[in-house]
Amino acid sequence: MPAPASFSNYIDTHADAFIKRLGDAVAIQSISSDARRREDVIVMGNWLNGQLNELDVETKLVDLGTHEMQGQTLQLPPAIIGRLGSDPAKKTVLIYGHYDVQPALKTDGWKTDPFTLVVDEDSGRLIGRGSTDDKGPILGWLNVLEAHKNLGIAMPVNLRICFEGMEENGSEGLDECIQEEVKKGKDGWFDGVDCVCISDNYWLNTRTPALTYGLRGIAYFSINITGPGQDLHSGLFGRTVHEPMTDLIKLMSKLVDHNGDILIPGIDDMVPPHDEDELKLYQKMDYTIDDIEEAAGGKVALSSEKTTVLMGRMRQPSLSLHGIEGAFSAVGAKTVIPAKVGGKFSIRLVPPQTPEKIIPLVHAYLEAEFAKFNSKNKMEIEYLHGGKPWVADVRHWNFEAAKKAIEAVYKKTPDYTREGGSIPVTLTFAESLGVNVLLLPMGRADDGAHSTNEKLDRSNFIEGTKVLGTYLYEVGAAA
Amino acid sequence: MPAPASFSNYIDTHADAFIKRLGDAVAIQSISSDARRREDVIVMGNWLNGQLNELDVETKLVDLGTHEMQGQTLQLPPAIIGRLGSDPAKKTVLIYGHYDVQPALKTDGWKTDPFTLVVDEDSGRLIGRGSTDDKGPILGWLNVLEAHKNLGIAMPVNLRICFEGMEENGSEGLDECIQEEVKKGKDGWFDGVDCVCISDNYWLNTRTPALTYGLRGIAYFSINITGPGQDLHSGLFGRTVHEPMTDLIKLMSKLVDHNGDILIPGIDDMVPPHDEDELKLYQKMDYTIDDIEEAAGGKVALSSEKTTVLMGRMRQPSLSLHGIEGAFSAVGAKTVIPAKVGGKFSIRLVPPQTPEKIIPLVHAYLEAEFAKFNSKNKMEIEYLHGGKPWVADVRHWNFEAAKKAIEAVYKKTPDYTREGGSIPVTLTFAESLGVNVLLLPMGRADDGAHSTNEKLDRSNFIEGTKVLGTYLYEVGAAA
Repeated sequence: MPAPASFSNYIDTHADAFIKRLGDAVAIQSISSDARRREDVIVMGNWLNGQLNELDVETKLVDLGTHEMQGQTLQLPPAIIGRLGSDPAKKTVLIYGHYDVQPALKTDGWKTDPFTLVVDEDSGRLIGRGSTDDKGPILGWLNVLEAHKNLGIAMPVNLRICFEGMEENGSEGLDECIQEEVKKGKDGWFDGVDCVCISDNYWLNTRTPALTYGLRGIAYFSINITGPGQDLHSGLFGRTVHEPMTDLIKLMSKLVDHNGDILIPGIDDMVPPHDEDELKLYQKMDYTIDDIEEAAGGKVALSSEKTTVLMGRMRQPSLSLHGIEGAFSAVGAKTVIPAKVGGKFSIRLVPPQTPEKIIPLVHAYLEAEFAKFNSKNKMEIEYLHGGKPWVADVRHWNFEAAKKAIEAVYKKTPDYTREGGSIPVTLTFAESLGVNVLLLPMGRADDGAHSTNEKLDRSNFIEGTKVLGTYLYEVGAAA
Repeated sequence: MPAPASFSNYIDTHADAFIKRLGDAVAIQSISSDARRREDVIVMGNWLNGQLNELDVETKLVDLGTHEMQGQTLQLPPAIIGRLGSDPAKKTVLIYGHYDVQPALKTDGWKTDPFTLVVDEDSGRLIGRGSTDDKGPILGWLNVLEAHKNLGIAMPVNLRICFEGMEENGSEGLDECIQEEVKKGKDGWFDGVDCVCISDNYWLNTRTPALTYGLRGIAYFSINITGPGQDLHSGLFGRTVHEPMTDLIKLMSKLVDHNGDILIPGIDDMVPPHDEDELKLYQKMDYTIDDIEEAAGGKVALSSEKTTVLMGRMRQPSLSLHGIEGAFSAVGAKTVIPAKVGGKFSIRLVPPQTPEKIIPLVHAYLEAEFAKFNSKNKMEIEYLHGGKPWVADVRHWNFEAAKKAIEAVYKKTPDYTREGGSIPVTLTFAESLGVNVLLLPMGRADDGAHSTNEKLDRSNFIEGTKVLGTYLYEVGAAA
């Protein structure tokens, strides 16, 4: 069931007011990772809560307690839990977004003030911190609510809301908050949720809307090698002792091949090969090697086959070497033999991989390789953190509804994508509610979410708002 | 010819005054690498110059100009060139030392104030910054001069002096100063120098005096790998692009084996094997594997054979991996794919190796190895700095004189050592003057020259002063 024509008209005729409201939101410097801006994050939460209340959404601000950061004990910004409608004849959709943003300074390389939304009439870009990540999508939902209230038409679904203010800083306290709400059962506000929609990621390119049904997990390790009691001078000790760096570099060189293959036995093999149907998904994606090389800023794609590169990102594990703690890392030429070094690497996981399944393989392999060195140094493998991968069923009515909404608004079939990174709350919703979770991106691949000159295209904001509204109608109509 | 008994007596009876004078020198915070202390370095130079003048040494302070440091243009501390005696019947000895010191803060872990010389009566240690490196040895020469002046006996040799105040900060300006003095020929103060004696290194252990006849050279490199235009997120780009770290770690792993062998073809082979006579030198050294493991602070010696470890340090090249610039190096778990990384390593050189002979081998090998990767990243090999190795003839009368002096004072035969590190001024003297250069250490291996709680044992200061004086008599008597 398409949205009524009056809805679409309202969005078009109120576009300027919506952009002005986005400007109001961008102006609040809700940087969650900067202690000096914590008050602004809370101001932003209150502003958003006020907007929801004005649009008839009943809300509660959940106090997530305090945390230690930058030497201070800080109040966590509240989670905003909301509800609108409890009609048992309607489906109940839970939406998620975050109202905090990444840091931004003009001196980082911004062409305009990051906290003043600039409307570039030539390019159609709305430029400002948080425009696409994630204030634009959150305000898309507000636009939908406003249209229905002012047009006097009922929402096609019962709505449940979960907005947080710590997403850019580890989502502290959120998992517990969600789990607690779910545990309350009939008394909780998430009771009866039929599906979840998260709008906090991006199209694969700048042209084609996408629906995202998978995220990779991660297992992050440090290989710690110790030996000498203190850093040594390479003149005095070179060729007299087992140097920790020699052992570490050799171990790290045995983790991943230059073509991207993971050399730890059992990890690549754990993933079943794709079938013909799955291959077609990748072949159909509106995506080229040029797209990835433009995004990477260099002609460094691992393959000239787009399906190989796409599957490398979306349905294969990957292993990246991030760096070394404890070694010389500054400009210049220091002749040190570092005494204690930690080589950092992580493995991105895809089903059926989990950190629990991967960790023993990493240990067994590295220990066997290190034993071959006959080194007198000591090796310890440290597991720093991790998370499971997630894949949703794209044939579910939740995805079907979103697909129809995109086709109705954009006249295009969406790309079905899996993200290489992780959005941990996805897994929390999927596991604690046991319902289908959809990632419905509003912005484009080139929005620069965590970068300078972050933008959301005006058309993505306005047409994206229509997609969100239409999606709710399609959910409402789903069998 | 031994020194007169009156000399030795004078040193013994004036020991407390000598220690007090060392305390005066230590109290001047002549830290050459700290712009805020530059004035103190110059004060120290003037203090030392005054001491020399009082002891009848004619001096000139050479203005080495200015340099840029820590954002300031700073006056370089002067080189002190001195002379005493011009008797054509006597040999002329040039002595070198430096009056600047390493930084030191109580909070670094000093048990006492670094700039107050503490005399620990129990251990016999003189504790303070510069006590052993290199104010103690410089003051040893002052003690010798004072004894001769006050006893009214003539020095057995003509003395020439070169003291600098920038040794701990690159010896800026010194090479040019020495070369200019040498170029003046008959009009220069270094005319007629027969040999050089540098006292700025350490015994091999804490028990046996040493004479040092060799220093390793160095060639320092950075392997720079570039590819992506900016740092990438490992979730979004893992297994889609050639990661510079993967290439770099693999290249670095091909440089040196875990047993210390250098894997770059032609480098280890360039050094002729030792003969039986040379082996005996190492067998005779008063040195154990325990000594090296105590110094390294861990049981990590490459071999249980002391000759293997000693030759690894003294007569073999070594390759150390120092670290990586541009990669993640902090505490924590950042999921970055660094876009531009530079792997730092250096090779310590022994004759006949020179940086010029080594550089093409490094290039040829790394380029061939990198070509095998078929990587789309770019590799560049950067040569950061280097210096030639140095080995002196230990059968020269200069070394014989020092050996006799040590035997006379300590009743021990010295270890003949080569140092693994470099003292660049050694090569400057050897090459510009064309005479034999001797390294005659005053302190012990455990003095902690660049570390906290730097000390010089009282016996090393007092007996060491006697060695310096006796050495001059033995030089004077040499055929």
